[in-house]
Amino acid sequence: MKALWAAAVLAAGLWLAPALAQQSDLMVEKKVFELPSYTTAGGQVIKNVRVGWEAYGQPNADRSNVVLVTHFFSGTSHAAGKYTPGDKAPGYWDSIIGPGKAIDTNKYYVVSSDTLVNLNVNTPNVVTTGPASVNPDTGKPYGMTFPIVTMRDFVNVQKALVESLGVRKLKAVVGASMGALQAYEWAVAHPEMVERIVPVIGPAGGSPMLVAWLDIWGQPIRLDPKWNGGDYYGREAPNVGLAAALKVVSLHANGGEWAEKTFGAAPAAEGKSPAESMANDFKIVSALDQSGAGRASGADANSLLYLVRANQLASADPAKIKVPALVINTPTDLVFPPEWVERTVAAIRGNGTAVETMQISGPNGHLNGVLHIAPAGPKIAEFLSK
Amino acid sequence: MKALWAAAVLAAGLWLAPALAQQSDLMVEKKVFELPSYTTAGGQVIKNVRVGWEAYGQPNADRSNVVLVTHFFSGTSHAAGKYTPGDKAPGYWDSIIGPGKAIDTNKYYVVSSDTLVNLNVNTPNVVTTGPASVNPDTGKPYGMTFPIVTMRDFVNVQKALVESLGVRKLKAVVGASMGALQAYEWAVAHPEMVERIVPVIGPAGGSPMLVAWLDIWGQPIRLDPKWNGGDYYGREAPNVGLAAALKVVSLHANGGEWAEKTFGAAPAAEGKSPAESMANDFKIVSALDQSGAGRASGADANSLLYLVRANQLASADPAKIKVPALVINTPTDLVFPPEWVERTVAAIRGNGTAVETMQISGPNGHLNGVLHIAPAGPKIAEFLSK
Repeated sequence: MKALWAAAVLAAGLWLAPALAQQSDLMVEKKVFELPSYTTAGGQVIKNVRVGWEAYGQPNADRSNVVLVTHFFSGTSHAAGKYTPGDKAPGYWDSIIGPGKAIDTNKYYVVSSDTLVNLNVNTPNVVTTGPASVNPDTGKPYGMTFPIVTMRDFVNVQKALVESLGVRKLKAVVGASMGALQAYEWAVAHPEMVERIVPVIGPAGGSPMLVAWLDIWGQPIRLDPKWNGGDYYGREAPNVGLAAALKVVSLHANGGEWAEKTFGAAPAAEGKSPAESMANDFKIVSALDQSGAGRASGADANSLLYLVRANQLASADPAKIKVPALVINTPTDLVFPPEWVERTVAAIRGNGTAVETMQISGPNGHLNGVLHIAPAGPKIAEFLSK
Repeated sequence: MKALWAAAVLAAGLWLAPALAQQSDLMVEKKVFELPSYTTAGGQVIKNVRVGWEAYGQPNADRSNVVLVTHFFSGTSHAAGKYTPGDKAPGYWDSIIGPGKAIDTNKYYVVSSDTLVNLNVNTPNVVTTGPASVNPDTGKPYGMTFPIVTMRDFVNVQKALVESLGVRKLKAVVGASMGALQAYEWAVAHPEMVERIVPVIGPAGGSPMLVAWLDIWGQPIRLDPKWNGGDYYGREAPNVGLAAALKVVSLHANGGEWAEKTFGAAPAAEGKSPAESMANDFKIVSALDQSGAGRASGADANSLLYLVRANQLASADPAKIKVPALVINTPTDLVFPPEWVERTVAAIRGNGTAVETMQISGPNGHLNGVLHIAPAGPKIAEFLSK
């Protein structure tokens, strides 16, 4: 089953989803942005910061046509296009990014970068700095000594990247889920550099309930004896725990309609009923197991824990947002329930800022914002052209 | 903190909840019902079945005033009253069961029993037969060789119990969550023995999404090396994994308003910000950790896995239900979302059977059905007296 999925799709967690467009008109090259030193919002210094990035379209002369795309929890910079013609799937939002598409690369220069502490450290084309990186001061991987980073840090490194490209103001910041958290953070942290934001499937700040769920996401890693307090580099990694963690993430991000239509009550193996033996399981469970294991192979356990913490600490205050926003969400979202997004919208509007909203549908819950974004294309195009 | 909670409240998972009524007019005695042999719905024979039960009120001469209360996933027979005057809290539904209360023990003889494979094997007053029981054929605990049991088996053992009390027809079966699954199962399996049912916070059958979530509940146990494929009796139990499992259950069963009002973004320890060190955590996470550990001390890991399977296999067909039902649920339920319950109601109505509905509110999500059941009291009383 694994062989049928492209690595990029696996990494993004878009497994067992409706077939993504297999064609793309874009070819894209992964590049690396380097900062000799970066000081986190918490005051810690990280040396030799490297993050991967890619871009679609061409910058105009004054660099005023740049759209920044920020990625979700288990995502990468690979939002559109293909790295090689043989790639089985393009980037995750290829349906809305490209020549003539909603985020039209004939008009915009679309930039996307891997975050700090990116999950998919062990996936080709992902470049990040995080707990799996070597600490130049010790010559050993940081592990759990890596500084805590937050949405503010993700955004600040992106700011340094786009400034290095000569950008003084972004046309827009557009992102799904953790990408939405970054879009809001951009509007709060650097309002002078953002014309507008398009947060998809995400509210501005976190919530205590999300703080707890994120802990549940990371919990299986800490239960894996191979995790060893985060000190496992150079040894066997805690990929059993990591796979179990990604299983929780995959389920939480999906939806009831997907579960019913894709699996129903089918057993994992024909003729082996879960009613007959505890060794038999349901198809949905074995599919989640396989997906978790597949995703874990390109990921890093400590990085997931750092992402959990970054998301737990997300706290952009929507009442401070003064740039126009198009907020897109989906009614069946289990990760960021609609009422949290509505609260964000009300808070932004409360300060007199214009907010447009749109709801998208689909069987995949939270992931509708990634898999079923295409119907929002016209609205996004219109909003960007204002 | 643990010392402040009564063991029964802990066992039921009603931790950090609004104070339950500390007074109760009922004193109750735990009894044991025994079956020399029970054959499961799947055709397996279990010898020496023992389950605990308790009752409130007095049976009338023809035993026509019996209300059966069926318990939730992590619950026990202890629905009301106190075992000793010194008990810190009464049974979980004491607000609606007792003299002059909604389920009026001056009128009804209320019976409740521990299910097979009850979770709280190691809690005083809990009597059950499950994987922690000794297999008479081997002289050793069953572990994972215990037969798979389902809602049908829970119900069939209850049927044998009430028949042993001379009951030919139950006035009603009333239960919350897994207790609701049992109420529907009663109506499908033994309609001639049930006058009416009151399922609270639960739909009739399972769903593929719930199948997967239940697997996530059990997953931490299987990750604990001490679980050892279920073979741990007489050795150190996998209580780290069990505590982590109960943490997932506790969170899933609660609600966003509870998280916000009880914890907000507070750190676990004052002055130790989660933004400063990965070793610092949030108060909500440490509270869930403590609760999980407390609950694990009275529970059994294999029993949780058997309960998971029993709930995954829940499949009462609501279209077959012909006894009047009062279906009570809560809009913020994350375990059994409102649309699943609505589907059950529509299916029962579809066959011409009368269904009344009621929604209860509260900050505790799914657990509103346990903690905030009191406002449903008058409606329940009216429904029972029809």
